[in-house]
Amino acid sequence: MSVLIVGSTALDSIKTPVAENPRLLGGSASHAAVAASFFSTVKLVGVVGKDFPKRYLRLYKRHRIDLEGLQILPGKTFHWSGEYEANMNNRRTLLTELGVFETFSPTLPNSHRTTPFVLLANIAPALQHHVLNQVQRPKFVVADTMDLWLNIALPDLLKLLKRLDGFVLNDSEAHQLTKEDNVFAALKKIHKLGPKYVIIKKGSHGSMLSSPRGFFLCPAYPLHKVVDPTGAGDSFVGGMMGYLATAKGPIEANLRRAMICGSVVASFCCEGFGLQKTTRVTRARIDGRVRDLERLTKF
Amino acid sequence: MSVLIVGSTALDSIKTPVAENPRLLGGSASHAAVAASFFSTVKLVGVVGKDFPKRYLRLYKRHRIDLEGLQILPGKTFHWSGEYEANMNNRRTLLTELGVFETFSPTLPNSHRTTPFVLLANIAPALQHHVLNQVQRPKFVVADTMDLWLNIALPDLLKLLKRLDGFVLNDSEAHQLTKEDNVFAALKKIHKLGPKYVIIKKGSHGSMLSSPRGFFLCPAYPLHKVVDPTGAGDSFVGGMMGYLATAKGPIEANLRRAMICGSVVASFCCEGFGLQKTTRVTRARIDGRVRDLERLTKF
Repeated sequence: MSVLIVGSTALDSIKTPVAENPRLLGGSASHAAVAASFFSTVKLVGVVGKDFPKRYLRLYKRHRIDLEGLQILPGKTFHWSGEYEANMNNRRTLLTELGVFETFSPTLPNSHRTTPFVLLANIAPALQHHVLNQVQRPKFVVADTMDLWLNIALPDLLKLLKRLDGFVLNDSEAHQLTKEDNVFAALKKIHKLGPKYVIIKKGSHGSMLSSPRGFFLCPAYPLHKVVDPTGAGDSFVGGMMGYLATAKGPIEANLRRAMICGSVVASFCCEGFGLQKTTRVTRARIDGRVRDLERLTKF
Repeated sequence: MSVLIVGSTALDSIKTPVAENPRLLGGSASHAAVAASFFSTVKLVGVVGKDFPKRYLRLYKRHRIDLEGLQILPGKTFHWSGEYEANMNNRRTLLTELGVFETFSPTLPNSHRTTPFVLLANIAPALQHHVLNQVQRPKFVVADTMDLWLNIALPDLLKLLKRLDGFVLNDSEAHQLTKEDNVFAALKKIHKLGPKYVIIKKGSHGSMLSSPRGFFLCPAYPLHKVVDPTGAGDSFVGGMMGYLATAKGPIEANLRRAMICGSVVASFCCEGFGLQKTTRVTRARIDGRVRDLERLTKF
């Protein structure tokens, strides 16, 4: 089965203490779509400007990503610029130019309206609603978010939570949303807001799933060198949804391994700037790191 | 087989935002010895003053801890006082009164000199050397440390590392010792300093073993409420050594499960002030949490 992915499609200019990389392919939907593409077919919904480099369209196509839902409009592509500190944990935004993204309001192609797996990658909750309204009886809907939407669009986000099967957020966002320091207390409150499956991401410390069948501690793949963590969270949720869309059996039974697959794709994402490393990966290398994680955690 | 444990035996006065607990039983050797006692017999080496409450001697005895190596000298017991912030991660020392600990230089009873498992719990490296010098052909020697010794006794610690089978330290200490941000780079340097087995503790994020058979990611047991983390690291290494001392087969094959057991005892430690929760635990409850961790990490 396919995954429909909506989110930002952007150009990222990323500075780290050792390098500067202008106008890389970025955005939550780009990272999530490439990550999901290793496991299933992907329908991308997004918008770019006329300045969007052709090579990035070719990159999507190499990953067999369906671009019928990608609008190319007169104007500039969303451009984000950020800078990481030496430890790669703290990031600050230097510049945000919304461009054509400012008025983005996608109409889904007919072929997209019955996609069973829907990933509402990080984007304004109103847009997540708008896309979800156009999908008929999806099988599994997951949304990601960021602190910005908790700050400026909380009512929209709370409405969205009632419509989701799964919700993914990081530990500081979980704290911000629930005012709870303890992860179990936070999870309990988030479930009450709607989603049956809640995943709390903890960066290099992995993630935690709370589901009707219980909790799962998902490790992060330990890395020898982190080059650029931009898009790691998007890659995680993209890889997870891609795996789920093609795995046999009930979702609940596949979710743990799906998270492990997401964690592995995220690890590759961190090893290069933007999507540079992720796009060079193969399914065989992903499976290799999944087996590594089995060995690393077995006792 | 037994474990010989040397370290501090102290009275801890612990303040948290919600409570104040004066003169609890504490110290690295107390926590490690009680933790190890759930798995094996323990020989405690330490010193206390005449003011040491009798009830704490009875507590050791209830855990069948051999006290032949515990000196009771005229003077005051080592007293430490500290305060935790609301998130339970940041601690500051309010007071350190060394008392009889200042001149502690133990002579091991004959019955202790052939103990196969030796845990040099957190204490000055010179004292760790002094005790190790008195043990004949130990089977497995592990040391713990703290940032203080990296600051004021680094040459002694570096000499000690050459004599150890295993070394346990936390992530910030690993960074301080090696100047490496990345955990793999740090581990490589620490192995070169001597120990075959290196364990890096990451608090509530678990720990990581580096050994000739590869790496192991050991999870922390997720807790609904942390009351007092004092002694959690000592409980971890104590539980680990206790398990190793009685497990059948080669040490390398048992080390992962030993770490899991240590992690579980540390989780109980965090759920009460000082040793209050740990001393009420049973082996059956520890085994229950070990099974929980199997379920929590399986995929």
